[in-house]
Amino acid sequence: MPARVVLTALEPFPLVQPGDDLPGLIVTALRESAISPADGDVLVVAHKVISKAEGRLVRLDAVTPSPEAERLAAETGKDPRFVELVLRESRTIVRARPGLIIAEHRLGWICANAAIDRSNAPPGDGGAEQVILLPHDPDASARAIREAVGAAFGADVAVIVNDTHGRPFRLGAVGVAIGVAGMAPLTDLRGQRDLFGYTMQTTEIATADELAAAASLLQGQTDEGTPVVHIRGARFARDGAATARQLIRPKELDLFR
Amino acid sequence: MPARVVLTALEPFPLVQPGDDLPGLIVTALRESAISPADGDVLVVAHKVISKAEGRLVRLDAVTPSPEAERLAAETGKDPRFVELVLRESRTIVRARPGLIIAEHRLGWICANAAIDRSNAPPGDGGAEQVILLPHDPDASARAIREAVGAAFGADVAVIVNDTHGRPFRLGAVGVAIGVAGMAPLTDLRGQRDLFGYTMQTTEIATADELAAAASLLQGQTDEGTPVVHIRGARFARDGAATARQLIRPKELDLFR
Repeated sequence: MPARVVLTALEPFPLVQPGDDLPGLIVTALRESAISPADGDVLVVAHKVISKAEGRLVRLDAVTPSPEAERLAAETGKDPRFVELVLRESRTIVRARPGLIIAEHRLGWICANAAIDRSNAPPGDGGAEQVILLPHDPDASARAIREAVGAAFGADVAVIVNDTHGRPFRLGAVGVAIGVAGMAPLTDLRGQRDLFGYTMQTTEIATADELAAAASLLQGQTDEGTPVVHIRGARFARDGAATARQLIRPKELDLFR
Repeated sequence: MPARVVLTALEPFPLVQPGDDLPGLIVTALRESAISPADGDVLVVAHKVISKAEGRLVRLDAVTPSPEAERLAAETGKDPRFVELVLRESRTIVRARPGLIIAEHRLGWICANAAIDRSNAPPGDGGAEQVILLPHDPDASARAIREAVGAAFGADVAVIVNDTHGRPFRLGAVGVAIGVAGMAPLTDLRGQRDLFGYTMQTTEIATADELAAAASLLQGQTDEGTPVVHIRGARFARDGAATARQLIRPKELDLFR
């Protein structure tokens, strides 16, 4: 029996509203998709539906830009109210130039616009433009989903919260993990032997990021609305105490900051 | 019918030797794995088996380091013969410090050690240590595999050659595409509308990299020996003239070089 990994989008998945019980919606969608999670399965959840359930939507017309935001907006050509939110969500601005702000998000992720998204945000009252911030604590969100699925199906599943980030050196964004529960995000190969008995040179694989990227293939970015993907057959190390922050390269080990 | 992506490792897969007909080995392995490729399927092939078939193995004891290699070896604490090969394979050294060399490979990839690998290289005559260089032209290798599979099965498949790269900002390596045939490596979302009718902000998804990362989940890094993964159900844009070099961020668009 060849090794196989199967990814299935949970369809249909409802439009998520602020205050919704997202773990409950996921349990219902699993049942409606005729998927019975088993031990060792993974659920990958697009962060946007978590942010929406948490009400992490901000109307741009309710934001007053600071002088610093006005300055950075002028430098980058971006909306000062949007830049104000980027600054509030960030520890530091890593790079800025016309059209682009790379920030270190308060959770440690280094990405464009502190991961604030202007797409897939429903309009506010009166059609005001809204943006979506990252969830408060994506690891905690992942744990809550893991517990709800465990309680409903009696299965020990891992949960990944993913986002889509651009990268240095390579064009195009890819899915990455920003929250995990129940799995070690990194797979340590040190001490393992290769085909010819040598100790491995590459020390760690970012398994949670590879799963996040794989799920992104099905999540779509447009009107398809499949934010949750079930994965069966992937190998990973279970870890009930893991955090996605283990994926953040410490600044002193990063030659590109 | 929910959207589904299925990845299957081709097992068994033989140990590849210099001079082997790799496209032929893949066709045989598909038959032995009882997989009949269909239009729109993807095959992801670990670059190491291509390099081995091409004889891209170098005995370290046959390499004479240049003065520049000796200097960089002293700076980084690496074997001067290994560093000599890194320099020969590179356009430029991007960063160097003890234990680490980040180079721009002659094909444009920015990665550790110009993608030269000391693991999974069979020992040379007399047990001499060998290393593996990247294939000469991973796009051409992908095209040859695509053509062989098309001829054997009458199916229009896409082929990705992947490697495992580390990244700025994030720990752990992930699978990435370094060769493609039959597919656009980037999916352009510009002009597509999101759930609420806004034009998308994220412009491009690196679909070939997401597929390369997904396949990496099954390829393993150690003695498992499953270098080729078949993928069914992924959406991508077909393109007979594409090259993986479309994934390289031009230096003028890269804030981190």
